[in-house]
Amino acid sequence: MRHLLGLEDLTRDQIMRLLDAAEGYLGVGRGDVPRRSDLAGKVVANLFYEPSTRTKISFALAARRLGADTLDFSPGGSSTAKGESFIDTARNIEAMGIDAMVVRHASAGAPLLLTKHLRPEVRVVNAGDGAHEHPTQGLLDILTIRRERGKIDGLTVALVGDIAHSRVARSNIHGLTKLGARVIVCGPTTLVPAEVAGWGVEVAHDLDAVLPRCDVVNLLRVQFERQRTGLFPSVGEYAHLFGMNGRRLRLARPDLLILAPGPINRGLELTPEVADAPNSVILDQVANGLAVRMAVLATLCGG
Amino acid sequence: MRHLLGLEDLTRDQIMRLLDAAEGYLGVGRGDVPRRSDLAGKVVANLFYEPSTRTKISFALAARRLGADTLDFSPGGSSTAKGESFIDTARNIEAMGIDAMVVRHASAGAPLLLTKHLRPEVRVVNAGDGAHEHPTQGLLDILTIRRERGKIDGLTVALVGDIAHSRVARSNIHGLTKLGARVIVCGPTTLVPAEVAGWGVEVAHDLDAVLPRCDVVNLLRVQFERQRTGLFPSVGEYAHLFGMNGRRLRLARPDLLILAPGPINRGLELTPEVADAPNSVILDQVANGLAVRMAVLATLCGG
Amino acid sequence: MRHLLGLEDLTRDQIMRLLDAAEGYLGVGRGDVPRRSDLAGKVVANLFYEPSTRTKISFALAARRLGADTLDFSPGGSSTAKGESFIDTARNIEAMGIDAMVVRHASAGAPLLLTKHLRPEVRVVNAGDGAHEHPTQGLLDILTIRRERGKIDGLTVALVGDIAHSRVARSNIHGLTKLGARVIVCGPTTLVPAEVAGWGVEVAHDLDAVLPRCDVVNLLRVQFERQRTGLFPSVGEYAHLFGMNGRRLRLARPDLLILAPGPINRGLELTPEVADAPNSVILDQVANGLAVRMAVLATLCGG
Repeated sequence: MRHLLGLEDLTRDQIMRLLDAAEGYLGVGRGDVPRRSDLAGKVVANLFYEPSTRTKISFALAARRLGADTLDFSPGGSSTAKGESFIDTARNIEAMGIDAMVVRHASAGAPLLLTKHLRPEVRVVNAGDGAHEHPTQGLLDILTIRRERGKIDGLTVALVGDIAHSRVARSNIHGLTKLGARVIVCGPTTLVPAEVAGWGVEVAHDLDAVLPRCDVVNLLRVQFERQRTGLFPSVGEYAHLFGMNGRRLRLARPDLLILAPGPINRGLELTPEVADAPNSVILDQVANGLAVRMAVLATLCGG
Repeated sequence: MRHLLGLEDLTRDQIMRLLDAAEGYLGVGRGDVPRRSDLAGKVVANLFYEPSTRTKISFALAARRLGADTLDFSPGGSSTAKGESFIDTARNIEAMGIDAMVVRHASAGAPLLLTKHLRPEVRVVNAGDGAHEHPTQGLLDILTIRRERGKIDGLTVALVGDIAHSRVARSNIHGLTKLGARVIVCGPTTLVPAEVAGWGVEVAHDLDAVLPRCDVVNLLRVQFERQRTGLFPSVGEYAHLFGMNGRRLRLARPDLLILAPGPINRGLELTPEVADAPNSVILDQVANGLAVRMAVLATLCGG
Repeated sequence: MRHLLGLEDLTRDQIMRLLDAAEGYLGVGRGDVPRRSDLAGKVVANLFYEPSTRTKISFALAARRLGADTLDFSPGGSSTAKGESFIDTARNIEAMGIDAMVVRHASAGAPLLLTKHLRPEVRVVNAGDGAHEHPTQGLLDILTIRRERGKIDGLTVALVGDIAHSRVARSNIHGLTKLGARVIVCGPTTLVPAEVAGWGVEVAHDLDAVLPRCDVVNLLRVQFERQRTGLFPSVGEYAHLFGMNGRRLRLARPDLLILAPGPINRGLELTPEVADAPNSVILDQVANGLAVRMAVLATLCGG
């Protein structure tokens, strides 16, 4: 594996190897578990064109816990304001001597474009590109489920919300179906794209109807800008139709696992009762995300 | 001591132990004094919701000089823009595996709130919360005085300016009075709160009258936004009534010690003549601040 | 050498020693070439009051590859918003214990001012001050030429574009002429200052006329704000008169070396064909910049 652009591009075995590797990195650099030197002497650059708290920090911490140096580019207050092109910026950072570039961009395909313009030694990791993929988020969601349930094969996982614009949904769909899960996508008709029928998933618009069959729900983030464009019902109606709340918890299996990629909108995708429920693994996702990013960086750049 | 939320919560002995520890950290990591490894393998997160130069950098440098890794969260360009709650943001950062969270927030009580929502292993350091406290600033002011005068007990210290809205004033008052200093608060009547009478301090409104009795003046920063609300006289009148200048220097004892928490407004709280006077220890405060923050972090997270 | 404020202040020998030192730092900290510890225990502060991607990151990486710790000040979200003066900010950062301050400022002379207000142990590096100088850019341009041509003496180098407002032009002129190159400045009459005649350079306004004589062209960045002030022709006219394109490439010697300090505006200072031509060394400049900055920091702060 040279780059990580999306889970659609990986085989079942490649995904399993990344998950297994991630298990080995859990807790590295914390407490009595020392940092590692897998990436000693390497430089990992973060190139984030969209706001991010957790993903950017997570990649940087993962890189440093493996001994790499990190370099952060944030487009505000930088030469982006001076009109430099995306590729020229990336090639300039590359010329400083880096080993991996972690990129987030509003345009789907931006990471792929980088792989065509950077030297082949520089490994590219997609940290979210438009509505395409966010593969480390997909991997960390899957790792979180696997650690709780011991397997993925045979589970039923519902992705709830705005499927059409969600890179998280796409990475989950590709990863989960390859590992044998049954995936249900459930959202307003305006936000479930027609093409989804070809992805081997079940389409639903009534959350109450499918919830009793689910082992896992992954509550996609509501993106308020969709509301302005008329694609999105009112906030109240969204919460009523697709928000996870106490009443819906009681419809579901008692051991229903609750994921959310966050940052969460309490009272919208989920109520505080759900966010803080015993089966909510939202904060485990964050910890698992670090391990997944270590595994990805070590696999691409290590040894 | 588990957290550092304010000097009001500490005993005289706890404050003295922090000051003594800070003396031992002066100069660590500089010149021939090597870095230390008190916090090797630990992660200190900065969570600053208000602008800061010196405090944020000071905490980060202090942590790194003790061997810790640091993680900086700045709310601009982050998921705060996406509507995530303060506690959810903090818990997400916590989930990445951190040992201490240094927090600055516009709301008094924000650090206390964190201690109720984070795991008990995560130590919280208040780096300024609303008009409540800024305990490391209080400690560094006190350390600076103690290093110059050899003691705190028996000294007379005037805090000059906007007492009502100053977290620096509150931390100084609590710390200094516990260590036996006589504290005079001196400012416009609109900016000295009535409650201050219960804090064991003397209230004054005429700086010239009290100055001859003072061993130390601490010139609080003028906050221009107060002027708009009518709480504040004009800039010129403020400088005339409460600004430290050459004329006032000559009213005071020759060895009057001059502190200012900064960033200073030259010509307002103090004239350049005063800022650069031999008895001005404004820049010593900065160096002592590093040592204080090392002492606090090592006390809370070390060993 | 105590500070690096401009190439105008250096002798030919000082420049040659910096270039020679830089050759020794090429590739340090990359691949099998380990980091060095020339600056172990030192702190290099970046104080950038103007936007920058590559220069700020380049200085930080250079410092870290020599074992220094780095400290970044970015004026947005800092006490600059609170009205603190430039010198007070710098002295505060100094008081935290630093060994070098790398400064970029919109005002010519700001780095010189720092040398007068900071302690003499703190070395100041000019990373661009107004329209005065950008000496490490000059050095990296010259290093790039020397590595390609084996010498500077006797070469003809054209600086093309807005000479009047370009600190890059000034540093190139001083450095190149001291090393024996013939320098041609070529731009619109409104953007070539009269004083340039006294700098020992040839003045031209017709690029086609001088191009056949050139060994090197350095295509200065177009600064769009000049257009608004009437000093600058239209973008289209600029590209027509002073932009490097395929037709001009064919007018020039086949081995014409093409430099641009970047960030480049493709289609304006140069066409994509030129930017990506075999003789374009724009990205080599970036890599050489790291080595130059290591050499400067090690020379000023090392051993």
